[in-house]
Amino acid sequence: MLRAMTDRIVVVPGRGALPPGTPLVAGDDPAVLHGDGVFETVHVRSGVPWLLGEHLTRLARSADLLALDPPDLRDLAAQACALAPAPESALRLVVTRSAHWATISAVPPATLAERRAGVRVVTASLGVAAHGRPPWSLSAAKSLSYAANLAARRWAATQGADDVLWTSIEGYALEAPTANVVWLAEGELRTTPADTGILPGVTAAHLLAVAGLPAGERLATVPELAAADGIWLTSSLRGLAEVRALDGTARPASPWTARLLGALGFPA
Amino acid sequence: MLRAMTDRIVVVPGRGALPPGTPLVAGDDPAVLHGDGVFETVHVRSGVPWLLGEHLTRLARSADLLALDPPDLRDLAAQACALAPAPESALRLVVTRSAHWATISAVPPATLAERRAGVRVVTASLGVAAHGRPPWSLSAAKSLSYAANLAARRWAATQGADDVLWTSIEGYALEAPTANVVWLAEGELRTTPADTGILPGVTAAHLLAVAGLPAGERLATVPELAAADGIWLTSSLRGLAEVRALDGTARPASPWTARLLGALGFPA
Repeated sequence: MLRAMTDRIVVVPGRGALPPGTPLVAGDDPAVLHGDGVFETVHVRSGVPWLLGEHLTRLARSADLLALDPPDLRDLAAQACALAPAPESALRLVVTRSAHWATISAVPPATLAERRAGVRVVTASLGVAAHGRPPWSLSAAKSLSYAANLAARRWAATQGADDVLWTSIEGYALEAPTANVVWLAEGELRTTPADTGILPGVTAAHLLAVAGLPAGERLATVPELAAADGIWLTSSLRGLAEVRALDGTARPASPWTARLLGALGFPA
Repeated sequence: MLRAMTDRIVVVPGRGALPPGTPLVAGDDPAVLHGDGVFETVHVRSGVPWLLGEHLTRLARSADLLALDPPDLRDLAAQACALAPAPESALRLVVTRSAHWATISAVPPATLAERRAGVRVVTASLGVAAHGRPPWSLSAAKSLSYAANLAARRWAATQGADDVLWTSIEGYALEAPTANVVWLAEGELRTTPADTGILPGVTAAHLLAVAGLPAGERLATVPELAAADGIWLTSSLRGLAEVRALDGTARPASPWTARLLGALGFPA
């Protein structure tokens, strides 16, 4: 069991939970020299990984894009989740070319705050066309090469925002660095088409399936998005975070936020 | 001293050379979870790091783009180079948010072969405009998030080529995943302008300075490049590798290759 909310335990097959800070990866391993690996982050509810099958399916797709052959991770996930703090926690599954392991930790307080209070989002062009990814692109893979995603979020902070919503050069909403975008317009719950090369969202797909609303994949410009009845960023740990400001313009709280969080099984 | 050509030694400040495979980075360190760090690769000649000052300057720029504060690495570089196999070897300097270290190894045989025999290159659009990088872009940083670079080279192999030359959506030559492009046209030695967001090449800049030819940064389309008197990929370890086939069309060996290798101090 985790001793403090800030602990993050690393669980390695055959070795169990390692003491905090235990070195695991060699200094010349491609996993650290080249961000050469894939991962998934899974929400854990009272020790049970949520949507684990869907996350493992996506991890297999990511691995395929990196020419990796992932092992079966179900036993490792179960072993890590047995150490999970209640009522909710964060499981991370990591697969590199030479090893695989899991981490288990509390959900970060900043994540809980964004679920509760929403986020201020600034839009910015990713510099690519909506259908212009190169053939080797890893944009649809959740790889360990995440430095640009973190840099985009640091940039958002310099703009007085919590997060970025990336747009295509034509101005269509794509995704956030660590989340998908979902919006309600014309009575339909919508998200970005997967053929734009975004990382397809496990949480977004589940939300569209269980919300009890008509649902579809759509391209939307930023003005179209701004006119929506509600906009949310969806990701495994946040569940959904309502966009309460878009490019500096405040948005009223949507009555749908609590209902959609409920549909996902998160505390509203 | 390295015992075999395939050894790669990891050198850590205060700990010296580690036995091969020694774990160094924790499984929850952002360096491995997010490719969150920067590096440089330096050619070492009889134990002396070549263009070390220029590489350290570029590492500092990379670190700034990732909001990292790099330490002084000169002592570490000297310590690692003392273990370098003669006559040439590869020094890698790595800086993460929590640590820094070096690796030293022989120059890979495949790299030596490309320097000697040249490379077959296929061009492919990177999907971005020549001046369309987003404000948080790390394209000009040599970060540990290198999975897409490796994926591009794997894709090149599926196209019967050794390497990719990335182009902008307008068709201008940008850079290769681990190299810059230099070409000779109209008596001028040319490379891609840094304001396209490429990683500015230490070897390319040095070559343009010492080749004894007029030199300049230019945008060139692929047909313009194909008409050049010579095309080379430049990088620290290869020095330069002549492009002997571009998009499947063979190119005659340039008499300049040996002269330019000589100007860089590499064995021709």
